[in-house]
Amino acid sequence: MERDERKNSVGIVQTQYFTFDSLKLESEESFGPVVIAYETYGELNKDKSNAILVLHALSGDAHAAGIHEGGNNPGWWDALIGPGKAFDINKYFVICSNILGGCKGSTGPSSINPKTGKPFALDFPVIGIGDIVSAQKQLIDSLGIEKLLAVAGGSMGGMQVLSWLVKYPERIRSVIPIATAIKHSPQQIAFNEVGRQAIMADAHWNAGNYYGGSLPAKGLAVARMIGHITYMSDSSMAEKFGRQKKDSSQQFKFTADFEVEGYLRYRGDNFVKRFDANSYLYITKAMDNFDASEGRPFQDVLEGAKVKALVIAFKSDWLYPAYQAKEIAKAFKLSGIEATYCEIDSTYGHDAFLLEVEEETHLIAHFLKKVFYGYEVTGNYGK
Amino acid sequence: MERDERKNSVGIVQTQYFTFDSLKLESEESFGPVVIAYETYGELNKDKSNAILVLHALSGDAHAAGIHEGGNNPGWWDALIGPGKAFDINKYFVICSNILGGCKGSTGPSSINPKTGKPFALDFPVIGIGDIVSAQKQLIDSLGIEKLLAVAGGSMGGMQVLSWLVKYPERIRSVIPIATAIKHSPQQIAFNEVGRQAIMADAHWNAGNYYGGSLPAKGLAVARMIGHITYMSDSSMAEKFGRQKKDSSQQFKFTADFEVEGYLRYRGDNFVKRFDANSYLYITKAMDNFDASEGRPFQDVLEGAKVKALVIAFKSDWLYPAYQAKEIAKAFKLSGIEATYCEIDSTYGHDAFLLEVEEETHLIAHFLKKVFYGYEVTGNYGK
Repeated sequence: MERDERKNSVGIVQTQYFTFDSLKLESEESFGPVVIAYETYGELNKDKSNAILVLHALSGDAHAAGIHEGGNNPGWWDALIGPGKAFDINKYFVICSNILGGCKGSTGPSSINPKTGKPFALDFPVIGIGDIVSAQKQLIDSLGIEKLLAVAGGSMGGMQVLSWLVKYPERIRSVIPIATAIKHSPQQIAFNEVGRQAIMADAHWNAGNYYGGSLPAKGLAVARMIGHITYMSDSSMAEKFGRQKKDSSQQFKFTADFEVEGYLRYRGDNFVKRFDANSYLYITKAMDNFDASEGRPFQDVLEGAKVKALVIAFKSDWLYPAYQAKEIAKAFKLSGIEATYCEIDSTYGHDAFLLEVEEETHLIAHFLKKVFYGYEVTGNYGK
Repeated sequence: MERDERKNSVGIVQTQYFTFDSLKLESEESFGPVVIAYETYGELNKDKSNAILVLHALSGDAHAAGIHEGGNNPGWWDALIGPGKAFDINKYFVICSNILGGCKGSTGPSSINPKTGKPFALDFPVIGIGDIVSAQKQLIDSLGIEKLLAVAGGSMGGMQVLSWLVKYPERIRSVIPIATAIKHSPQQIAFNEVGRQAIMADAHWNAGNYYGGSLPAKGLAVARMIGHITYMSDSSMAEKFGRQKKDSSQQFKFTADFEVEGYLRYRGDNFVKRFDANSYLYITKAMDNFDASEGRPFQDVLEGAKVKALVIAFKSDWLYPAYQAKEIAKAFKLSGIEATYCEIDSTYGHDAFLLEVEEETHLIAHFLKKVFYGYEVTGNYGK
């Protein structure tokens, strides 16, 4: 088992950094210089036709597969990227970059503002999903890739997929938006807003100026806990935790009794060590402001896009319910895009896009072959 | 219209206070003296057979109907309690009390500890839903009521209904649990836990010792915001807010843009003025610890209970999903209780128990008549 896993791993990988001078933001502001952290897996072929851009979700980073030298954390989509996996690096060249505004190597609010020598904090400009994608395009340009074989991602990664399609349809051959939406519903905005409020309620947040001092750790942990509830389903939580109580020797009245409470606190506290609170504010706001349809019927915005599409949703995902993915697939079809819609019968909730490896592998591997080799693959596309 | 509303109102009401010396808690601890704030509507009949106990939810209070002298806030279930309404005060005597542990007149963590002359804060004992109900029973005893015609309530009020049924089946003729559960699922616990964490993350919380100083207002507001998201449905939020943006003249980067954000902040900030953070901790913990089935099949616990039951759930309620109400109804039937289960086709989410007035009135009015007059009423019980 272990040997097999190692055999299918991308192996040791290294994060790389691409720097460019200036980015024109959607707000018309010019911003730069910009550093984008990225990783690549597999080999770019001679005609540069096998490149796939994989896009991460809210808390993700450039490390999508393999492990770092001396580390033992596989990338966030390691189960899907590797030799013989969904994104088969024996065939494809896979790229993943940390988003603009993030805190894992790309320029974001915690980066040093060259004008002041101090972290940007709230002097970092407001960015949109479109700006994140513009920065990615500069990276793709720098790699000399004219046309991406596919852009793929789940959750906020799926929003970036849609933004790529709207902004640069001529630069891509196919799209795989997973567990995502054309735009956030009020409920999705509300969950993000409460997370932001929790961060800003933390006295240590200090209007964003906490670098070098105490971090708004409690606020960020609460935001992450809210997130985790929305990433799981009622039934996956019931299966994982039941009403098991933890060690009852703790005497303080409101410490975590139930396993689910301990789990959430652990995940919340852990997140604080690896994520910047201001990045959380900027990124969630970019998600909430995103509207791929630009206020019009989405199919009108897509007009003329010549791509193939695989749209995936998960039955128990209540944060990005299947009806939102259906809206995407419907608009694709209305605009003439050749689209397949698959709703996977998962109990994992929104987390399914990271966990339903077998089903996703089946769907994505076949879809990519069809796009890459240009032939039709018949068979059972999901349930 | 306005005249009709006034005509059907209970009119001016006054909160009363009942004090008793001591309560034996489920923890075996004796606690007292205890004050219970309560209101009554209508007249108790000669044989004291027309008394209905109505039980409030997390943020409710004794003021269930009518208005207070000089005030203009109708009670929280005013739409259902009054002449000719679901709980018809021309026929019935309705009682509602603020729960033990609350902060609206009944003894709770913000009350003065007679031993110290200061608020209890975290010296208030841990209480369960059963203790809340024990205190209510003392009130009912003091009113000389041998047998309640009905106990009714939604959400945490419904948990109290189930606790009454388990603890004092001989004291009640019927039960109306609405939008409630035998016990909380991990998801329900998780939402409460994040609310508690938000409160305890507030530096002003100060391990519960904030009385007379700055309140943990931001933390409590975040907890309430989380609550409000769970009380509404995806579709009721979409209908109420859409993606409307508020006045965009605000310049600060993360102030509320979307209407839904402004709404949540308003509701959060407003709650802080009327609710005690420590009560929020104690009460949500009582809800999470509650298990009407005492770890056994619920029908076994109910054995021998001779009551009629009306169980109500709402289709779009995802906080207390209909499957939980079905579990209640199923256990009732297995234990021989004559039970009707109704799932109302509402889009309001959990809030429906406060808002679906017409459907609830129809169901409850007919059910109560059947119990009170002892005859069968035929007709359409909901959809």
